[in-house]
Amino acid sequence: MNDSSKEFTHIRSNDLPSMVDVSEKSVTERKAVAMARIHLGHELAELLRNSGSTKKGPVLQTAVIAGIQGAKRTSDMIPMCHPLPLSAVDVDIELEGEYALIQATAKTSARTGVEMEALTAASVAALTFYDMCKSVTKSMKIESICLLEKSGGKSGDYRAKDAQISK
Amino acid sequence: MNDSSKEFTHIRSNDLPSMVDVSEKSVTERKAVAMARIHLGHELAELLRNSGSTKKGPVLQTAVIAGIQGAKRTSDMIPMCHPLPLSAVDVDIELEGEYALIQATAKTSARTGVEMEALTAASVAALTFYDMCKSVTKSMKIESICLLEKSGGKSGDYRAKDAQISK
Amino acid sequence: MNDSSKEFTHIRSNDLPSMVDVSEKSVTERKAVAMARIHLGHELAELLRNSGSTKKGPVLQTAVIAGIQGAKRTSDMIPMCHPLPLSAVDVDIELEGEYALIQATAKTSARTGVEMEALTAASVAALTFYDMCKSVTKSMKIESICLLEKSGGKSGDYRAKDAQISK
Amino acid sequence: MNDSSKEFTHIRSNDLPSMVDVSEKSVTERKAVAMARIHLGHELAELLRNSGSTKKGPVLQTAVIAGIQGAKRTSDMIPMCHPLPLSAVDVDIELEGEYALIQATAKTSARTGVEMEALTAASVAALTFYDMCKSVTKSMKIESICLLEKSGGKSGDYRAKDAQISK
Amino acid sequence: MNDSSKEFTHIRSNDLPSMVDVSEKSVTERKAVAMARIHLGHELAELLRNSGSTKKGPVLQTAVIAGIQGAKRTSDMIPMCHPLPLSAVDVDIELEGEYALIQATAKTSARTGVEMEALTAASVAALTFYDMCKSVTKSMKIESICLLEKSGGKSGDYRAKDAQISK
Amino acid sequence: MNDSSKEFTHIRSNDLPSMVDVSEKSVTERKAVAMARIHLGHELAELLRNSGSTKKGPVLQTAVIAGIQGAKRTSDMIPMCHPLPLSAVDVDIELEGEYALIQATAKTSARTGVEMEALTAASVAALTFYDMCKSVTKSMKIESICLLEKSGGKSGDYRAKDAQISK
Repeated sequence: MNDSSKEFTHIRSNDLPSMVDVSEKSVTERKAVAMARIHLGHELAELLRNSGSTKKGPVLQTAVIAGIQGAKRTSDMIPMCHPLPLSAVDVDIELEGEYALIQATAKTSARTGVEMEALTAASVAALTFYDMCKSVTKSMKIESICLLEKSGGKSGDYRAKDAQISK
Repeated sequence: MNDSSKEFTHIRSNDLPSMVDVSEKSVTERKAVAMARIHLGHELAELLRNSGSTKKGPVLQTAVIAGIQGAKRTSDMIPMCHPLPLSAVDVDIELEGEYALIQATAKTSARTGVEMEALTAASVAALTFYDMCKSVTKSMKIESICLLEKSGGKSGDYRAKDAQISK
Repeated sequence: MNDSSKEFTHIRSNDLPSMVDVSEKSVTERKAVAMARIHLGHELAELLRNSGSTKKGPVLQTAVIAGIQGAKRTSDMIPMCHPLPLSAVDVDIELEGEYALIQATAKTSARTGVEMEALTAASVAALTFYDMCKSVTKSMKIESICLLEKSGGKSGDYRAKDAQISK
Repeated sequence: MNDSSKEFTHIRSNDLPSMVDVSEKSVTERKAVAMARIHLGHELAELLRNSGSTKKGPVLQTAVIAGIQGAKRTSDMIPMCHPLPLSAVDVDIELEGEYALIQATAKTSARTGVEMEALTAASVAALTFYDMCKSVTKSMKIESICLLEKSGGKSGDYRAKDAQISK
Repeated sequence: MNDSSKEFTHIRSNDLPSMVDVSEKSVTERKAVAMARIHLGHELAELLRNSGSTKKGPVLQTAVIAGIQGAKRTSDMIPMCHPLPLSAVDVDIELEGEYALIQATAKTSARTGVEMEALTAASVAALTFYDMCKSVTKSMKIESICLLEKSGGKSGDYRAKDAQISK
Repeated sequence: MNDSSKEFTHIRSNDLPSMVDVSEKSVTERKAVAMARIHLGHELAELLRNSGSTKKGPVLQTAVIAGIQGAKRTSDMIPMCHPLPLSAVDVDIELEGEYALIQATAKTSARTGVEMEALTAASVAALTFYDMCKSVTKSMKIESICLLEKSGGKSGDYRAKDAQISK
């Protein structure tokens, strides 16, 4: 493939990593949506479903809160990310069959996008869900952490081919 | 299923979350190994392979370093995790076909295990890898974050059925 | 009371918490003032007064510095708070009779207010004051952490009925 | 009063603050319990009571989680506190009349006590409760943050005169 | 010297420290460049030079990444610093004779300058370089951490007399 | 030089950085002392000296407190450092001629040493001193950050040739 525009913008000519200089970019409204999916297995899915809100409630609440806080720490965790003034973070979790489906949305008004914030929110929520349930089973698997869509910014909008949260 | 030993130990009888009281547990050597896998797609895999060490080097180094730092922040990110004096963290990344395979190992000498530290190291390394390459393609997908094995502690050792890092 | 405008804006219709979306709000100058009061008891108040600046100095300095740093970490500590670019934080402490009176002011130019930053600064300063003096007495009590006033933003200005720092 | 044993152990002879040297102290089991109380006012108390679990649930969960995470960040926030390997943190919140009553318990096996961890957990839970409800009323007041009891360590056990969480 | 404009702006009239109020200042593009130099000694300099990229690579990469992350944590570490939305951070390291020369550049669009961010990036990179090599020798010395230049802001541009990174 | 024991222990055979595995090392008492020196220049040195305690006090207090907090964040800042349960941190600053002399001491009871904690405390105190005085002059220079001594641990004690804090 011969597309010279595809570059590793986080790496400089001397092969050292660098935070991309966004000082010339315009401040625009930016949004990104990411997902994660956890395979729970039959037993855990059943247990959560049967516990009514007594167990499911705290598991979901803790995962949602951790995901939101995770989004705010993205630039602290991912070395080349810029610190961004997030204007909104939302994390949703639903149980469906043997899966937990997580969707995270992040918004900012800034010079660079919030893809990593949305992906980090989804990942930290998934890890926390795992932590809250690992006394029941350790064989959960976190799958399909990916970007569903992004908008705002010069590089244009992006929408995953199969852009919906799904099993 | 009727296994009364399966419980949500992070949730108390009043349905509020809580950090498990480990003060009665013994201090033992504990270790956990986790993996994550990133589907890169053909173009990115090719680009990394062809760049020799000039691009691949900084991408892998940054992801490894972020993963190690992520492990140290596990209890800050995952609400019910205990702060643990980690005695070792290792993150390995290899490119294989259209995938990047990440394996993270964490060790401690403590009253509770390091599963979440190993899983967090693998996840943060994967997110960082994504960040370093997202200027090339946004359609990477992080897959199969899971525990490969753990040892130490009263609940016994665990080994995933298919306990090897794999595509 | 029948005031439908009173809502829990941090909780969504599905009963999961969420960071309020402020992306449509305007950036305005915002300011908030909060207070905390510590009951020291006779002995400690006397000891601080008699030590001249030798003990009182470091106690006050450490509490003021911790309060200012606490304000900067508000969004890291309070899960649904937005990260804000603080333009000023001030913490004042005075000894008056058997009390230490703390007043904290925070300012920003942002889409949402700084009440929590001012309250957090006052609280962390109070906790630090407690820590610096707890070798003398453990029976101090932190009282009356509250908002004295806020200005800026669509919801209008607020001034506590008895808006002055007081015993 | 003439009790020469009462000293500001966090301040050295040159009037600069310092982290107390605990390297000669023994590692023992230590525990501390602290409380905070929030005056909600009639309207908010009613609203929380009438909302059933739909609003009260997320408010309490978020406050409890933030309190637990706050305990883990105590040494990061309070300048002279030692980093401690917490073995348990528990935060309980109950609504009673026009008040929310918060009780926080912290445990460790270390060379110094966990009073500040318990007090910080209670304070951060109270601040978060305030944040979750401030869209309803800003006139809440956080009161009576104090130590209820501590045990373990050479300085002996402590129990507040009126050591029970109360209005 | 009789220049009454020289003041300690971080200290108020009551001799307590304070974050300078920048709410009246204009948002402008600001940039700062700082340096640090590490004296390695003959043996370590030789060892790094002879190892080709196998050892030098990871040492430099780790130091650069830590420096960039350090810049983002400046306001968390330096008590009176404002949190700033950094738009770029760059850290360069070169080996020259028995020295490692570090240059750090920080940019923001804000109400106050980024001198401390550039100085912190250079310092953390230097400390990390030390850490990566201290198994070889402990007698390295970090020298000459200073500001090379700053631009933007009312106080005008600054350029060190001998403003170039040098042995 | 042909000393095969001199190795980069933070770098593995695959040239990726790694946190050294200390799980086999013994827990021993460890201590390290580091220094930093700031060249203030004539004007600033004079100004601090003449201000009596009114300006010098807050400058020193803020620098000391930041240095102590910096020591506690060492493993968060320096990627390959282990998190350590510090049992003591002390930072001393003295003005001497045109210099500020900083000495930092750190202690722990752990499987690895506290050199980086002492060096980080000295560095963060120096950066904070710079920040507190940079409204007076920007031409300060931080010099001679180095280890003065370390004790405890298998690799034996270390004492810098000229192990005293000095101009």
